[in-house]
Amino acid sequence: MSLTQLFALTPGEPAGIGPDLCLLLARQAQPQPLVAIASRELLAERAAQLGIAIELISVGPGAWPDTPSAAGRLYVWDTPLGAPVVPGHLNPSNAAYVLETLERAGRGCLAGHFAGMITAPVHKGVINQAGIPFSGHTEFLAELTHTEQVVMMLATRGLRVALVTTHLPLKDVAATITAERLARVARILDHDLRSKFGIPRPRVLVCGLNPHAGEGGHLGREEIEVIEPTLEQLRGEGLDLIGPLPADTLFTPKHLERCDAVLAMYHDQGLPVLKFKGFGAAVNVTLGLPIIRTSVDHGTALDLAGSGQIDSGSLQVALETAYQMAASRR
Amino acid sequence: MSLTQLFALTPGEPAGIGPDLCLLLARQAQPQPLVAIASRELLAERAAQLGIAIELISVGPGAWPDTPSAAGRLYVWDTPLGAPVVPGHLNPSNAAYVLETLERAGRGCLAGHFAGMITAPVHKGVINQAGIPFSGHTEFLAELTHTEQVVMMLATRGLRVALVTTHLPLKDVAATITAERLARVARILDHDLRSKFGIPRPRVLVCGLNPHAGEGGHLGREEIEVIEPTLEQLRGEGLDLIGPLPADTLFTPKHLERCDAVLAMYHDQGLPVLKFKGFGAAVNVTLGLPIIRTSVDHGTALDLAGSGQIDSGSLQVALETAYQMAASRR
Repeated sequence: MSLTQLFALTPGEPAGIGPDLCLLLARQAQPQPLVAIASRELLAERAAQLGIAIELISVGPGAWPDTPSAAGRLYVWDTPLGAPVVPGHLNPSNAAYVLETLERAGRGCLAGHFAGMITAPVHKGVINQAGIPFSGHTEFLAELTHTEQVVMMLATRGLRVALVTTHLPLKDVAATITAERLARVARILDHDLRSKFGIPRPRVLVCGLNPHAGEGGHLGREEIEVIEPTLEQLRGEGLDLIGPLPADTLFTPKHLERCDAVLAMYHDQGLPVLKFKGFGAAVNVTLGLPIIRTSVDHGTALDLAGSGQIDSGSLQVALETAYQMAASRR
Repeated sequence: MSLTQLFALTPGEPAGIGPDLCLLLARQAQPQPLVAIASRELLAERAAQLGIAIELISVGPGAWPDTPSAAGRLYVWDTPLGAPVVPGHLNPSNAAYVLETLERAGRGCLAGHFAGMITAPVHKGVINQAGIPFSGHTEFLAELTHTEQVVMMLATRGLRVALVTTHLPLKDVAATITAERLARVARILDHDLRSKFGIPRPRVLVCGLNPHAGEGGHLGREEIEVIEPTLEQLRGEGLDLIGPLPADTLFTPKHLERCDAVLAMYHDQGLPVLKFKGFGAAVNVTLGLPIIRTSVDHGTALDLAGSGQIDSGSLQVALETAYQMAASRR
């Protein structure tokens, strides 16, 4: 961690709590130079609303900081808004602004100016309302970096959970778990745990798809027909995969102590226990990208913008995780 | 809890850890008279194998105990084996014995001799191998008590999770969540939390079926078409139901502190977090039966039978829960 590296922080939706989180965080010194990519005007206004004094220091291409910011200071790469912001009120006129902050961060990572990017929440609905097709940070960054397959992983202290499928109706999950998809996701997980987390031989516990991992075929045959043969093939490639295991016995200390990550088949199989354990301090990591990107695990919380009644625990973990990943990167 | 009530304990599969658990437990005094329904010979042999001294006291119809057993003593309603038992080795010749112990317990509860029954694990496979169709304790007791619909609920200290669907392939879950089924399960949950747990107006948090509870229809329409209208109807009947909520944000202290139970749509949505929290001390409660029945949440662990290397935490909680339920019963 002795190397000084520059990181990008995008506050996301300007009417949400993203700007607030960045400002609250800036009350403490950062271990690395961290640049908020946002409207300087917005941050100044929100700081006044919150009643906190944060000195905003303008930086940008050709004028990057080379030391971490002290407590009470925040580096800002000023990015102009499309329209004034009222906390809690979405405005499609600021959709292009939000995407511009993401593009600056993503391109800066690709160009090597930033060692990684950390994102606060955006609001998909208002961006689409502005006529810009947008299905989320992850997909946006995959396209920007020409990445075919990304993997969503959530992490909290002591537990990482990656997902084979993410945001789709439950009825479509079983058919989506193909051998090809499972293999691609498991390889990316293994690769990124090595290359971005510095784990020499990652051990991964794999959940079954069905209750009791199918109980020998009595409760579903996907384990026998798809999951087991695929894991066997991947073990032949050198991956250390345990399973498929029943999800309700896998998430116990006996098993978790011996692994670097859990691979769950779908969203609600893996994330309830992670968020229960994380308790407001979980981070979303996008694997498979050529860049380091971490994110908070919550939404824009429009009703809390400007209130100061928010918990910056998840952003704190997102920052720590990005710093650690960049330091471990190989 | 001042009332003295008789309880039945079935050690289940004789080659598994059930007999061991009953004997380990008998080292401590019980608050209520507890009768193991099992082969006296089996218990004596297993106690010798474990190297623990437990005095077995024969009881039975017409000769029930009226005081709790002291430490080191266990009441036994002797039930003859079909064949000698070798720990760890399943034998279909003892399938009828296992079912006889369950029938004695169940009929004793129905007749009012027992205030409740607590079950250690059985092995479904070997019972079926003996030519007796058997799909589990729950189904067996439902048939014995002429109960049409039962509800599986797991509980640990501070959390109860009931399931709308239980042991079926994941691909069949969505189609199985009908308005009728959801309503029946929610009514039984509400009824039994009142009548067996003494909660005057149970508050239940209900999970959505899809990730993010469908996100307004973008990730599945079952919330809009089935779950929401059904919950609305049930609220009209006086049930206090919150949801549908996203499963990955519901299981956080903020929500859980304000509820008496969670209703999950399927097995792996609700049980991983419960067992993670419970950490070896969860109990399975069958709701909807006219009798009180609790069970351990683990299997027969054939490889550990006779070893003494087992944790009786789940059976301990199963007993405590049955005692509390009987005391709260209305």
